[in-house]
Amino acid sequence: MLNILTEKFPKYSKKLDQILKPVEKDLSLLEDNLTGNLYSGNSDLDKMVRYFFNSGGKRLRPAVSILFSKAINKGHLLPDNFELALAIEMIHTASLIHDDVIDNSETRRGVMTLNKKWGAKTAVITGDYILSRALTRLISINTPVAEIFSKTLNELCIGEILQKNQNYKIISLEDYINKSEKKTARLFMAGTECAAVITPQANNLIINAARSYSLNFGIAFQIIDDILNFNGTLQQIGKPVASDLKNGIITAPVIFANREYEEKGDFTLKNLIDRKFRNEKDFERALRIIFDSDGINKARILAENYIQKAISSLDVIENNSYKQALIDLAYYTAERKS
Amino acid sequence: MLNILTEKFPKYSKKLDQILKPVEKDLSLLEDNLTGNLYSGNSDLDKMVRYFFNSGGKRLRPAVSILFSKAINKGHLLPDNFELALAIEMIHTASLIHDDVIDNSETRRGVMTLNKKWGAKTAVITGDYILSRALTRLISINTPVAEIFSKTLNELCIGEILQKNQNYKIISLEDYINKSEKKTARLFMAGTECAAVITPQANNLIINAARSYSLNFGIAFQIIDDILNFNGTLQQIGKPVASDLKNGIITAPVIFANREYEEKGDFTLKNLIDRKFRNEKDFERALRIIFDSDGINKARILAENYIQKAISSLDVIENNSYKQALIDLAYYTAERKS
Repeated sequence: MLNILTEKFPKYSKKLDQILKPVEKDLSLLEDNLTGNLYSGNSDLDKMVRYFFNSGGKRLRPAVSILFSKAINKGHLLPDNFELALAIEMIHTASLIHDDVIDNSETRRGVMTLNKKWGAKTAVITGDYILSRALTRLISINTPVAEIFSKTLNELCIGEILQKNQNYKIISLEDYINKSEKKTARLFMAGTECAAVITPQANNLIINAARSYSLNFGIAFQIIDDILNFNGTLQQIGKPVASDLKNGIITAPVIFANREYEEKGDFTLKNLIDRKFRNEKDFERALRIIFDSDGINKARILAENYIQKAISSLDVIENNSYKQALIDLAYYTAERKS
Repeated sequence: MLNILTEKFPKYSKKLDQILKPVEKDLSLLEDNLTGNLYSGNSDLDKMVRYFFNSGGKRLRPAVSILFSKAINKGHLLPDNFELALAIEMIHTASLIHDDVIDNSETRRGVMTLNKKWGAKTAVITGDYILSRALTRLISINTPVAEIFSKTLNELCIGEILQKNQNYKIISLEDYINKSEKKTARLFMAGTECAAVITPQANNLIINAARSYSLNFGIAFQIIDDILNFNGTLQQIGKPVASDLKNGIITAPVIFANREYEEKGDFTLKNLIDRKFRNEKDFERALRIIFDSDGINKARILAENYIQKAISSLDVIENNSYKQALIDLAYYTAERKS
């Protein structure tokens, strides 16, 4: 297991539900709405939607949006802020359902994917349906919110295409961050930016803080996700190790590892990736090379830098328990183990 | 080939481009926009989008919307009306791309589908992307337009799920019309209703005419589409005949045929469908039974009734060349051969 920490970064041990205590009731109401209120009047569609939402999920995107709303609004949550939080989780869900179709995944969150259980056709439509319901909610909030989200959806798609077309390519760090921003951070950002935009007393300073916190938080979140994909040692048989790398998705640990070797004139890792791991031995060799490098550690430092940037963005917000939860959540994200 | 006409219905022979002459320039500009203006800045995404739009299509949905706009606005087309027309075709396109993924189709409009050429992953994302770009346009028009479309998208998804879950079931005529309305007519309706909604001088009478024309037109369009799926005789080998029926999609000709036999105490067709055509012989037998019935003819009469309803809806609109084109287009739709 990975347990590499940089010196300057505080060791963090609070549990997620402790951190989210100040918005516990809001998140519980959100849960009720997600699992109960999306009824289409079509029993099959309802069944699929409920199945997915009942399979869990950390609800981090709505949590960040709700925390930010309350942090800048003296602990109040406007009804529109709640609608917004619901819509974000719905959009995230729709994108996961489509991801599972296109990756032909069989399980998610420990249960069968929709495509595995009911077929790709049903899964694509269910994703489209959840997305369209989310858009209905966003449009009912106001036009700027709907605009921000529709542009975010454009970016999400571009991020997915970028990733697909960068398969088995050692991309630059800049391209990696750019892709992570589009694919992951933008949705965090839309939710938090809109939380500020629809709060009457939020000025531009606050809106910028919302954007900066969530953008940097989202990038760090993705980097850590990519590190966690390397979790488990080569010895832990039966567990899919580094499935991203296996599928040709080149992330921060690999980019850093490759840099380190290239600087010594060693192009083995690059060659193995270029030839798309002709066999299992190729792949294990690449994995060993990465584990022997400082790649994962450097990726963690990069994530921590983004976390620090996220936290600094909150300086303009007055201190309260919600702001503290946003700070804690950022530290938690950097140190999370799953 | 089918060539069954009811007596009361006028024989119609104008060609589509003749009918659309009054909006020829608008449609040409639309074409330029579709094939040129959707640039994402991502060259791969652009390539796929252009590939699809360049493969043709009758652009009937935007044509109806533009004709209606001009019919009620003394031949003027507001910029928002044009944006609306673009967005409708984009949404239609996104839904076709997703349909091809879920049906695993290999060709459309005579060229390879996106999923066949670039894989399902790319196709799902491209569909999502075109949809999100369309939504951006709609939101920029105004909130009522965005609301109408987001609800239409919900209905579209419900229509698709209904169809999927009614596979190999002899549904009632009412269920068939209900599904056709959601799956097809609603998008025609959204485009035309919004054309009226955003025209300042359009009163409720006009808005209702827009809804009624396009709803009835859309249902007739789907019925005719379902009839055309039976085109080609059993002798024309090499051509996929009645692919819908083969896939268990039960449409008007089958419903009418089955009624006719059931009324004589003959349940053969129902039994063949119930057992999902155990083999090719089963399927050919079912097809023969349908061709021997009055099913296709009755379906055509049903479509013609909807066409008549669509045309009557236009009574409140003053006579002009655009209204005449809407009438002609309705007749054309009832008689079209492809």
